[in-house]
Amino acid sequence: MDRLTPHDITALCLSLGVILFAARCLGELARRVGQPAVLGEILAGLLLGPTVLGKLAPEASAFLFPPTGGSAFARDAMANISLVLFLLVAGLEVDLSALWRQGRAAAAVGVCGMVVPFLIGFAGAWFLPSLFGAQPGADRGIFALFFATALAITALPVIAKTLMDLNLYRTDVGMIVIAAAVFNDLAGWLIFAVILGQLGTAGSGAFGIPATLALTLGFSAFMLTAGRWIFHQILPWVQAHTSFPGGVLALALSSALLAASFTEWIGIHAIFGSFLVGVALGDSSHLRAQTRSTIDQFISFFFAPLFFGSIGLRVDFLSNFDPLLCALVLAIACVGKLAGCLLGARWAGMERREGWAVAFGMNARGAMEIVLGLLAFQAGLIDERMFVALVVMALVTSMMSGPLMRRVLARKKPRQFQQFLPARAFVPRLKARERREAIGELCLALAETGAIDARAASAAVWQREQTAPTGIGSAIAVPHARLPGMKAPIVALGLSSEGIDFDAPDGLGARIVMVILSPLEDDGAQLEILSDLARFFARPDVRSRALAVRTHTEFLALVQAERVAH
Amino acid sequence: MDRLTPHDITALCLSLGVILFAARCLGELARRVGQPAVLGEILAGLLLGPTVLGKLAPEASAFLFPPTGGSAFARDAMANISLVLFLLVAGLEVDLSALWRQGRAAAAVGVCGMVVPFLIGFAGAWFLPSLFGAQPGADRGIFALFFATALAITALPVIAKTLMDLNLYRTDVGMIVIAAAVFNDLAGWLIFAVILGQLGTAGSGAFGIPATLALTLGFSAFMLTAGRWIFHQILPWVQAHTSFPGGVLALALSSALLAASFTEWIGIHAIFGSFLVGVALGDSSHLRAQTRSTIDQFISFFFAPLFFGSIGLRVDFLSNFDPLLCALVLAIACVGKLAGCLLGARWAGMERREGWAVAFGMNARGAMEIVLGLLAFQAGLIDERMFVALVVMALVTSMMSGPLMRRVLARKKPRQFQQFLPARAFVPRLKARERREAIGELCLALAETGAIDARAASAAVWQREQTAPTGIGSAIAVPHARLPGMKAPIVALGLSSEGIDFDAPDGLGARIVMVILSPLEDDGAQLEILSDLARFFARPDVRSRALAVRTHTEFLALVQAERVAH
Repeated sequence: MDRLTPHDITALCLSLGVILFAARCLGELARRVGQPAVLGEILAGLLLGPTVLGKLAPEASAFLFPPTGGSAFARDAMANISLVLFLLVAGLEVDLSALWRQGRAAAAVGVCGMVVPFLIGFAGAWFLPSLFGAQPGADRGIFALFFATALAITALPVIAKTLMDLNLYRTDVGMIVIAAAVFNDLAGWLIFAVILGQLGTAGSGAFGIPATLALTLGFSAFMLTAGRWIFHQILPWVQAHTSFPGGVLALALSSALLAASFTEWIGIHAIFGSFLVGVALGDSSHLRAQTRSTIDQFISFFFAPLFFGSIGLRVDFLSNFDPLLCALVLAIACVGKLAGCLLGARWAGMERREGWAVAFGMNARGAMEIVLGLLAFQAGLIDERMFVALVVMALVTSMMSGPLMRRVLARKKPRQFQQFLPARAFVPRLKARERREAIGELCLALAETGAIDARAASAAVWQREQTAPTGIGSAIAVPHARLPGMKAPIVALGLSSEGIDFDAPDGLGARIVMVILSPLEDDGAQLEILSDLARFFARPDVRSRALAVRTHTEFLALVQAERVAH
Repeated sequence: MDRLTPHDITALCLSLGVILFAARCLGELARRVGQPAVLGEILAGLLLGPTVLGKLAPEASAFLFPPTGGSAFARDAMANISLVLFLLVAGLEVDLSALWRQGRAAAAVGVCGMVVPFLIGFAGAWFLPSLFGAQPGADRGIFALFFATALAITALPVIAKTLMDLNLYRTDVGMIVIAAAVFNDLAGWLIFAVILGQLGTAGSGAFGIPATLALTLGFSAFMLTAGRWIFHQILPWVQAHTSFPGGVLALALSSALLAASFTEWIGIHAIFGSFLVGVALGDSSHLRAQTRSTIDQFISFFFAPLFFGSIGLRVDFLSNFDPLLCALVLAIACVGKLAGCLLGARWAGMERREGWAVAFGMNARGAMEIVLGLLAFQAGLIDERMFVALVVMALVTSMMSGPLMRRVLARKKPRQFQQFLPARAFVPRLKARERREAIGELCLALAETGAIDARAASAAVWQREQTAPTGIGSAIAVPHARLPGMKAPIVALGLSSEGIDFDAPDGLGARIVMVILSPLEDDGAQLEILSDLARFFARPDVRSRALAVRTHTEFLALVQAERVAH
């Protein structure tokens, strides 16, 4: 029996640990500068792979990632399983009902946003295959079909994330974008499945093209109708009669693996099966938010970084970087997608500004494009240069979409109070016993950061406090003032073990005291921060946990965790 | 580069899907009959492996689990990664502070419960190695050391689960058992690490025995002191400044993989590294319960079944089942452990009854024993017969421990109201508008199950209702009565959309009406069910979710999910 040697196990654990660690670190860095995490995760692979480490220290690279032997098989297996499970999560995010609810507008945007770039891509690749990096032996029609599909798909997870960041997810514009993206994703993957089937490189090759095509369509139709219904029927039973959430987890993951095996066997790729299982399962209202998030979190933060981190290990991105090809692919992709979506939006009678927002949203290609490109590359359909160009195009369009939507809709990210709380202005044990002292103490803490003058701020806040007390009940007080000459709002937070009288309606002394200073010119800031803070501290358990905190870092950790949990 | 073929991917996904599905199904069945899930998971492997399927249909078995090629490497890789991550979870459950808090008693039980079976095991294996199935070429001393360790360890996860089931986890007895088990686990694995090092089969073999020993002790000491401190210091920072809970998840998993690689490299097994990372990380109070449960659930219900399901694939359990050896190993294991623990308990001055409870608890070997046995088997230290005997011993001792502890402490599992609610007695839309009608309607539903007489029950409940109304506020009413001639309590639940007046202190009409009938002789039943129900419906969001339920199965699903969540 073929088994890993102890040396293989050492190498496997080491390589997975290093990829996971590096991918997540750079992913967080990317997030920090407002970019999608997948950008950093891929970058980590570039640094560890032939592009950088392989050049600088070939022995270290070969030691970390042995190219042959048991651990190479094992690493490839983990990348494949990771990809299959990542597509399960992508499928779970698809909201089929959004497709129906938005009706005409979604259909118009979905169809035009798919057809226009598809036609442009097909024409370009058909007439100039070598320009677009078709492999010499590749079938011209299949290559054109692939390139057309690559331009036409859209990245549902990236879009969903962007819309949530902008508080647009549940709006009309948001739902149209989501519904159109769902349509693009399903149609795009179906076409791609057919392409893979035609290539005959996947699966056992036991089936001819017509059989593969029929099986693919039949399986898709089955999963989206009967499969969906079956999951919806058995989920309550599984939750009621097996351990929770273990039963549902095992059902989801084993179904995904079995469906993946089936689709790989019929000659299309494994990911198609797990994607469809995700769509069918995610559509059931019986799938609890808690279970969904356990699956989502573990896969997004363990399997996904392993997969995206391993992409950079396959190709030398620097030597295969062809600036002209990259620019060309990027330009065609953007022009086709934007033109198609704008056309669709106008057809559906949407407002001009909203049409542009939808178009910029749909333009993001994200992780799906990279998966598509990798499969085509492995199947010998495209060369390294084209693969690199597709990855670059996917990343650039994803990076553009958030900022452009924000600008065209004149949206801002909602402001949260902890963003304006400097470390020094967190006072875990207030010395003050009454409100004037407390205001002075917190303003002094703020003055240490150099942003304000303690005396002037303290006077302004106290003056405001005298006009109407700021104890808002539940042991919270929010003394505040608007000051001339400030650039940005600033906030100080003090905790008092005994409570300070801020004349609250419920008579409770304030144990959480927050001083909010905002610029005279910024109308929204004070209200936004105040209401965010009131929402955050609304739950009694959050308040009591906050009172137990001892450092600014612990407080930020609490804020992050509670914002995710509720 | 060595990569999986499409055929390998088909086989890999299929085998993992089948193992996961079968292992979880049989695991749930085992849980149903009150046994640990791991029993069913191992049984699934027996059915799929050479023991059953390999005999009945060798081609099917070879198709599902190809013994050679890329997919065999891949399957072995998944089993290894699963094992490494499972040990991370086992480590997370270790509560180091319990070791200190219980002081003398824990030390006495821990030391005696370890030393006595160790000595008995060592003596037996030293003088009669062939009787105990030592491999012909194996070193006598090392074999005796291994067998002694195998008898001396204890299964922390099984014990923790049993104690929680019996509501004993936070009691003195519970903490003594946990603390002693932690000591046994740490000491046992340390000795085993040394054994593996001596065998020289693990790792790169770059180190001699003294170096391996020194590195093992040094690494353990480092992780339990400095490593613990470092995790405690950086956790708040990670939670505050990276995405939540992704940052912590990636930190835990990459640390586990890197430590696993390190311990495999120095010549002991990979699992030792991830176990120590789990201990060090789990000890930090900054690790949130939510993150802990995401890690725990995903690993326990995905990776663990994959590992335990794959055990049965390795050996033919039937042909290697030696009844005499199994009985001998089981007897020595029980006698040694029970005698040692009883001695320790007496030394610590524990009560007789409690001493027996502690001894029965410590006797469970569970999954850890199986891991130990598998590693020894793979290292060529023991033969198939002994491996099978160890697995049998681990399962039998684990199955015994819960029922015996329950009996000796005269404990019962706490009764939960939904256990007594028959499907027919769940009435999602009560027709009744006032309380006498509601009582009658629910008693009639109960009578359909054949357990009671509707008229008599309804009269008794109504009589009780008249002495004092049973509206307990928050839109809940609990009319109840104790009836002669009943064998077990029985409960009916009705939901009313308009609310029925049960004269509640807060004046709200009851929308959740629960009739509780209990035997005249059973003093505790009524109170237990009443307080369980009041606790369950205490949260307003639980009540509103319950009111939206339409079937008995959906209601049970809600109960399961909410009990896990809070």
